Amino acid sequence: MPDTNPLRLGIAGLGTVGVGVVKIVRKHAKLLEARAGRPIEIIAVSARSRDKDRGVDIARYDWEDDPVAMARRDDIDVLVELMGGSDGPAKAAVEAAIASGKHVVTANKALLAHHGQDLAAAAEKAGTVLRFEAAVAGGIPVIKALTEGLAGNEITKVMGVMNGTCNYILTRMEATHQGYNALFEEAHKLGFLEADPQLDVGGIDAGHKLSLLASIAFGTQVNFDAVELEGIEQISLRDIEEAAEMGYRIKLLGVAQMTGRGLEQRMSPCLVPAASPLGQLEGGTNMVVIEGDSVGQIVMRGAGAGEGPTASAVMGDVVDLARGLDISTFGMPASRLVPAKPATAAVPAAYYLRMELEDKPGALAKVAAALGEAGVSIDRMRQHGHQNTVAPVIVVTHRCSRAQIDAAMEGLAKTPVVKGETVAIRIEEV
Amino acid sequence: MPDTNPLRLGIAGLGTVGVGVVKIVRKHAKLLEARAGRPIEIIAVSARSRDKDRGVDIARYDWEDDPVAMARRDDIDVLVELMGGSDGPAKAAVEAAIASGKHVVTANKALLAHHGQDLAAAAEKAGTVLRFEAAVAGGIPVIKALTEGLAGNEITKVMGVMNGTCNYILTRMEATHQGYNALFEEAHKLGFLEADPQLDVGGIDAGHKLSLLASIAFGTQVNFDAVELEGIEQISLRDIEEAAEMGYRIKLLGVAQMTGRGLEQRMSPCLVPAASPLGQLEGGTNMVVIEGDSVGQIVMRGAGAGEGPTASAVMGDVVDLARGLDISTFGMPASRLVPAKPATAAVPAAYYLRMELEDKPGALAKVAAALGEAGVSIDRMRQHGHQNTVAPVIVVTHRCSRAQIDAAMEGLAKTPVVKGETVAIRIEEV
Ligand SMILES: NC(=O)c1ccc[n+]([C@@H]2O[C@H](COP(=O)([O-])OP(=O)(O)OC[C@H]3O[C@@H](n4cnc5c(N)ncnc54)[C@H](OP(=O)(O)O)[C@@H]3O)[C@@H](O)[C@H]2O)c1
Ligand SMILES: NC(=O)c1ccc[n+]([C@@H]2O[C@H](COP(=O)([O-])OP(=O)(O)OC[C@H]3O[C@@H](n4cnc5c(N)ncnc54)[C@H](OP(=O)(O)O)[C@@H]3O)[C@@H](O)[C@H]2O)c1
Repeated sequence: MPDTNPLRLGIAGLGTVGVGVVKIVRKHAKLLEARAGRPIEIIAVSARSRDKDRGVDIARYDWEDDPVAMARRDDIDVLVELMGGSDGPAKAAVEAAIASGKHVVTANKALLAHHGQDLAAAAEKAGTVLRFEAAVAGGIPVIKALTEGLAGNEITKVMGVMNGTCNYILTRMEATHQGYNALFEEAHKLGFLEADPQLDVGGIDAGHKLSLLASIAFGTQVNFDAVELEGIEQISLRDIEEAAEMGYRIKLLGVAQMTGRGLEQRMSPCLVPAASPLGQLEGGTNMVVIEGDSVGQIVMRGAGAGEGPTASAVMGDVVDLARGLDISTFGMPASRLVPAKPATAAVPAAYYLRMELEDKPGALAKVAAALGEAGVSIDRMRQHGHQNTVAPVIVVTHRCSRAQIDAAMEGLAKTPVVKGETVAIRIEEV
Repeated sequence: MPDTNPLRLGIAGLGTVGVGVVKIVRKHAKLLEARAGRPIEIIAVSARSRDKDRGVDIARYDWEDDPVAMARRDDIDVLVELMGGSDGPAKAAVEAAIASGKHVVTANKALLAHHGQDLAAAAEKAGTVLRFEAAVAGGIPVIKALTEGLAGNEITKVMGVMNGTCNYILTRMEATHQGYNALFEEAHKLGFLEADPQLDVGGIDAGHKLSLLASIAFGTQVNFDAVELEGIEQISLRDIEEAAEMGYRIKLLGVAQMTGRGLEQRMSPCLVPAASPLGQLEGGTNMVVIEGDSVGQIVMRGAGAGEGPTASAVMGDVVDLARGLDISTFGMPASRLVPAKPATAAVPAAYYLRMELEDKPGALAKVAAALGEAGVSIDRMRQHGHQNTVAPVIVVTHRCSRAQIDAAMEGLAKTPVVKGETVAIRIEEV
């Protein structure tokens, strides 16, 4: 018989997402009960400051200063962890909840990217369920699609644009013809950046998400450390404009792929065709592309962050638990997840290179020689303005490996006519 | 404790989809067991002809001539109904399965559009689960997204391009500059059309799907009869080319929306912006757009039919059942679904009109008068070639109601300078 008692929540964290969850539970109490087959009730809440005005009335819920104590309360069934952080109170509260037999719903990608394997194993052992739809791609129900809807597929590839802030900066650079720093400042002023901006612009946050998707897709243990990470700080307005002229846009793109040499996971700026669905993504919108052996390609698009979309994802997990969903965190028991052998950019690609070149006879030939020595052949080359003594040169290579590009960059660094660092951006023909 | 016994399937129907399901169960036995937490086994199969070569070895499964008898077997847990048809053996087998306490997975939109409410109620009463992911938008896990992932939302609108054959014909008309009849023949030769082509080109199949999405989205009883249906047979090459010149493409688009006046459900050709995700859909690809109060807009794209994608969706449901998923067919108990008050095209829109006009002085003025009388005002008008005595005229109206358009069409029919029937296509600014 299905359980018809209320599902009792303890919510740890009343920031953007936590407040969003409280609002949905209140606004849609009847609808949620009809869908879940039982009432969904908030019993207790916890945050740092009890007195902060949060725009919702929390006086009706029990207050806990300590989220760990809340996690252990006998009168809650589910800990909803919305504090954030890979360690500290979030980890402690989730562990306490599991240890005392509670289910957990979290939006915390950092926590899961670092401790997902252990937490999943602990939840399994305790017979509880740990879910994290909101941790990846905001409102898009992609964890559900991958663990459940596409469970009949061997997944061959997962790709995604999953950091709205980076996408905002990159699309605004193109729209406003301003450089990276100006748009970084704009994003900062709008409150789009995490307290530690490296999490966003360094690709770490998106890398966390990719490592979680990869684990589910390939049945491997989460291995965030193996994600090749590259941020967007090096992307200049020139890169964006050169890309546009060639029919491309630059996106911080994550790719996870099982190759003959192992699991490739990379999160890096890429040139993608401007007319492709990924190329057309604007601002904070996320997109995830999943390829499976039976289903072919599935594309999902939606808001990647924000109060409503993220709370929607949290509530999807909560309703699942109310309905009695019993599923392993990463789609199969933690004990069956295998360690993934990391493979670095195993799949070859064409690359876009930008370098500053002294404008004197024979300089281009030296660049070509350095590339040739690394086995990199040139598809197209373009030199700009001769008015200065140093002029930017753009090279598009034929398909080659990342190792060859790295060797070429080393060679270029030793070529005296090349000034400063060469920027290399992968071209992904999605 | 989770059940670790094999989940035992009986598969009724071994056509395109049934064979696809058999292949996945065989190819991915281990993967499915890891994900589902228990083996998934086929016990028995049924189809019309036992001897047909189906490209898979079915000798290892019990054969049943009668799908109803198979549905009642004690040694199966789930009936997988892949025969098709809104009545006859499909309905009989599903009813027999439910009556004998089995779960049901089906890809049969016709069955559910006509009998979904009764079948859902019967399943609930019997304590069994009836799921139908494969019935809507092929491989796209949209039923799951709507019933589960987005369960925290009040859904405000659902839209979709969900008939690959129609989309194939329309996109090929534009690409090859051939008329409807030529492409209908091509689709027929390629085996893309149902035995009764009206199901495809008349919009019925897509209308079935829309009525199922609407039920889940709005908590209403399935009401296929209330879907305003219009097929693509009237669409001419000229319409497609005129639309293209204005920056639009013509798609067979379904829209379900709860309005102040009731539930609007329509499946009809529409002009959509060529650059929009819906406008860019090619061939057999499906797209579903869901709007929720918290999540905003979610877009899902993927293959809408075919062996692999459809079988993938069936297997998603099967794995759910293996994991013990217990959920109502339409996302809430059948007894809680309310009858929907149908509202006809309650939301106003601009319309594209094409008519054949006698090329003589004052003719255009008469058209304008007929439109004006119905309260329809003209945004743009375009008259073609004066070489004939009858010339096509294209009118784009300002936003108006469908009732006004219908009145205008009646008026035009009575205007002697207008020859033949006027074609009206809604412009949907998605
Ligand atoms: N914001 C988004 O759009 C989004 C999207 C996807 C995932 N997420 C994830 O969701 C989680 C929450 O994000 P958010 O944006 O809602 O964060 P936030 O606005 O910064 O809110 C964090 C909340 O946690 C509370 N908190 C922090 N440390 C605490 C402690 N030691 N004890 C008790 N409470 C503590 C804070 O309390 P006070 O309010 O009293 O300071 C605050 O209410 C993070 O894991 C984030 O990565 C966020
Ligand atoms: N094809 C797709 O891409 C697709 C996509 C989404 C949903 N669907 C739905 O999936 C279902 C199956 O479609 P399909 O394309 O696989 O159809 P199909 O290729 O025509 O196969 C139908 C199967 O049902 C069997 N069958 C028909 N009447 C029967 C009866 N009285 N008793 C026993 N078996 C009977 C047939 O047996 P024989 O082989 O012996 O003739 C055949 O194996 C339909 O509801 C369809 O709407 C199909």
